[in-house]
Amino acid sequence: MRKPCSLLALAAALAALPVLAAPAGGDALSIVTDLTTDIGQRMAGTPREAAARDWAVARLKALGFAGVHVETFPIPGWQRGEEQAAITAPVPQKLAVTALGFSGATPPQGIRAELVYFPTLDALQSVPDGSLKGKVAFVDHAFVASQDGAGYGVFGQPRRIGPVIAAQKGAAALLIRSAGTGHTRDPHTGYSQQPKDGPLPSGAVSIPDAELIARLAAKGRPLTVSLTLTPRAVGTLTSGNVIADLPGRDASLPPILIACHLDSWDLGTGAIDDGAGCAIITAAALQASQSGQLARTIRLLWAGTEETGGFGGQAYAKAYAAQRHAVVIESDSGADRVYTADFAFAEADKALAERLATALARMGITRGSDQPEGGEDVGYLAAQQKTAVIDLRQDATRYFDWHHTPDDTLDKIDPAQLQQNVDAWAVVLKILGNETGPISPLKQP
Amino acid sequence: MRKPCSLLALAAALAALPVLAAPAGGDALSIVTDLTTDIGQRMAGTPREAAARDWAVARLKALGFAGVHVETFPIPGWQRGEEQAAITAPVPQKLAVTALGFSGATPPQGIRAELVYFPTLDALQSVPDGSLKGKVAFVDHAFVASQDGAGYGVFGQPRRIGPVIAAQKGAAALLIRSAGTGHTRDPHTGYSQQPKDGPLPSGAVSIPDAELIARLAAKGRPLTVSLTLTPRAVGTLTSGNVIADLPGRDASLPPILIACHLDSWDLGTGAIDDGAGCAIITAAALQASQSGQLARTIRLLWAGTEETGGFGGQAYAKAYAAQRHAVVIESDSGADRVYTADFAFAEADKALAERLATALARMGITRGSDQPEGGEDVGYLAAQQKTAVIDLRQDATRYFDWHHTPDDTLDKIDPAQLQQNVDAWAVVLKILGNETGPISPLKQP
Repeated sequence: MRKPCSLLALAAALAALPVLAAPAGGDALSIVTDLTTDIGQRMAGTPREAAARDWAVARLKALGFAGVHVETFPIPGWQRGEEQAAITAPVPQKLAVTALGFSGATPPQGIRAELVYFPTLDALQSVPDGSLKGKVAFVDHAFVASQDGAGYGVFGQPRRIGPVIAAQKGAAALLIRSAGTGHTRDPHTGYSQQPKDGPLPSGAVSIPDAELIARLAAKGRPLTVSLTLTPRAVGTLTSGNVIADLPGRDASLPPILIACHLDSWDLGTGAIDDGAGCAIITAAALQASQSGQLARTIRLLWAGTEETGGFGGQAYAKAYAAQRHAVVIESDSGADRVYTADFAFAEADKALAERLATALARMGITRGSDQPEGGEDVGYLAAQQKTAVIDLRQDATRYFDWHHTPDDTLDKIDPAQLQQNVDAWAVVLKILGNETGPISPLKQP
Repeated sequence: MRKPCSLLALAAALAALPVLAAPAGGDALSIVTDLTTDIGQRMAGTPREAAARDWAVARLKALGFAGVHVETFPIPGWQRGEEQAAITAPVPQKLAVTALGFSGATPPQGIRAELVYFPTLDALQSVPDGSLKGKVAFVDHAFVASQDGAGYGVFGQPRRIGPVIAAQKGAAALLIRSAGTGHTRDPHTGYSQQPKDGPLPSGAVSIPDAELIARLAAKGRPLTVSLTLTPRAVGTLTSGNVIADLPGRDASLPPILIACHLDSWDLGTGAIDDGAGCAIITAAALQASQSGQLARTIRLLWAGTEETGGFGGQAYAKAYAAQRHAVVIESDSGADRVYTADFAFAEADKALAERLATALARMGITRGSDQPEGGEDVGYLAAQQKTAVIDLRQDATRYFDWHHTPDDTLDKIDPAQLQQNVDAWAVVLKILGNETGPISPLKQP
């Protein structure tokens, strides 16, 4: 017996139909899976970054983006070499070590020196200049995991400026506790400032190794260390931004710029930093426009160089200085869920920010302190144009366990949390993309 | 105003007094902290195992144990060399690799060969002998973490017997998915059987790398790999058991043998495997006798070689074949809590087993299937003398994340769970140590 066709049943059947299917390969998990599998590490300026750009162009074209192209720029190159370290006295203990980005080199046969333990960067700063001649400075710190990842600011400083301070104190090399929160033997690399008169051999040891050093140092007997790091500067290399548009109906409206970075550090495969970000923004743009073309263009920037100095974001800001952008948003904190959102909007656009916050609140995403950071890939443009900025802040509890280490691999991505990012971004992009009124700069430029 | 002294207050004051303070350095956390800090890795037969023995003798004497001495025995030596691997086609991807124990060596410059993916050891077994000539066999598996760690049995087989099967199939080398459950880039080493006519280059890649290989293999394009492993056999070395007694009041009663192993693999510092075990049994023996000397002697065996072939337990069984032992118990599954106990007791001693199970039940420890395994350090003696055996089974959920990897370091030990082990063992040792009746062999020998 045939059931009578009710309006309710019809409505239910229509609701179950996808509005427009996402293009094959356009979901976030597929993008980051393929990028990490088919490319892997893609350190800025290397042939692997070039391969990643080719891959990105092909993928973004296949997904239907318009105007997909590459804009190249020069960057300073640096290449990792041999990496070995050990405590040699009072007890032989191998150390898991990796060079900080832009580290100087020891002689090929390494150095052997007294290791001087400093519990903090301030403690290193407090000793007289030149007093560590011939010694290796070791800087410890107390970075612990938190949802907002705030510890990376202060506890990342030994990595960022430690080499300059250690050199000022006369040290032959710097070792630091890995600027992360994970307990594997895989230390964290990352950008470091180096002395102007030449780079200092600078490495991070894993957290279990740093804790071992701290325990040995607490015994008060002299510690000696052997250290071999042979990285080198490799001159000027070419990096490039990949740019793609999802064109809006009204080309006169300034675009929404959404960004990630395509380059990764060389140790892992750049899954959480920042393959996930590129996957999230791309899948979200597609999802936001699934039910129909948006009014406003969404521009994707897969920045070519973030890790080794923010050159991608700088190149974009320079190249597009004359083109007004409405809002900038970046995804570069892994693949875990968005939990809070910050809005820097002009006074005239507070109602728009309120609409966005309300839509996100329905997903359990709270409104934060409205002091978005922007990030390396959009921050230069935002500062220049005083554009509106949104941060969709991700849970960083696990992020610094793996960030910049060999452990940054695909298995660290939770597909459900990745998709939650896409859903949150798509909500935001759909509202912004269909906002046909002016979206003002924060201050009149 | 002085309060009147009540019997209740007096009883409370007495209960708060420690019966006898544990000797300084006799708690489990101190023992494993000092062993991993002052010695670190202590691979069997190396100078570091010898240093660990000296350390152990000094510590056990300081803690008041009697008859502390070393009994040496010869073992086959093997030493790790260079370790490098990478996928070279269809895409360059570095692999985190480590040699399996007793692996053969590639030429110093390495090999480059087609990699053939096998989802299981059975799949490798099923191809014709000689059919993998010039190729590298890769064996995947599906080991996932569980409380009883049961997966290590079946999913450890690619490591244990894979080299023999791969050689039979003609392979130039074997790579396996690390026989663990952790998602770091630190692969798991361990004992492997090798072909009689010479060892095969045999390595494990980390689990993220194995998953990458599986994804690439699923694409159906040929995979090539480069592999350099240069370990070598280093002849006969000397290892040694450390033996110590906590003498009972009645020397005529056969002792309780409690065991751990002092040697570790070379990659980590042997905190959970098996520094924790030595710490647990030692602290528990002290704790069990804190309120007075036990009737029966407790003998500690810190076995010299477990990892590279169980030679420590074999040497003890041979040396003490003529001395009756009452019960054997081993601790060699990390530092996480005891959750169940198994008893193999003679029929006449079922009531004793019941008393032990009841005492443990008060701590939330259930009774298992009463099929204890014993373990490498006590199993040879137990089989020979048909002694009673107890297993105090530990939660292994986290154990295989770190076991045999560089990540086996002190920070993986949860002090509260470590102490729960000591408490459980002390309960058992106090009951057994004060059991003055006969404890029978399982069968009359």
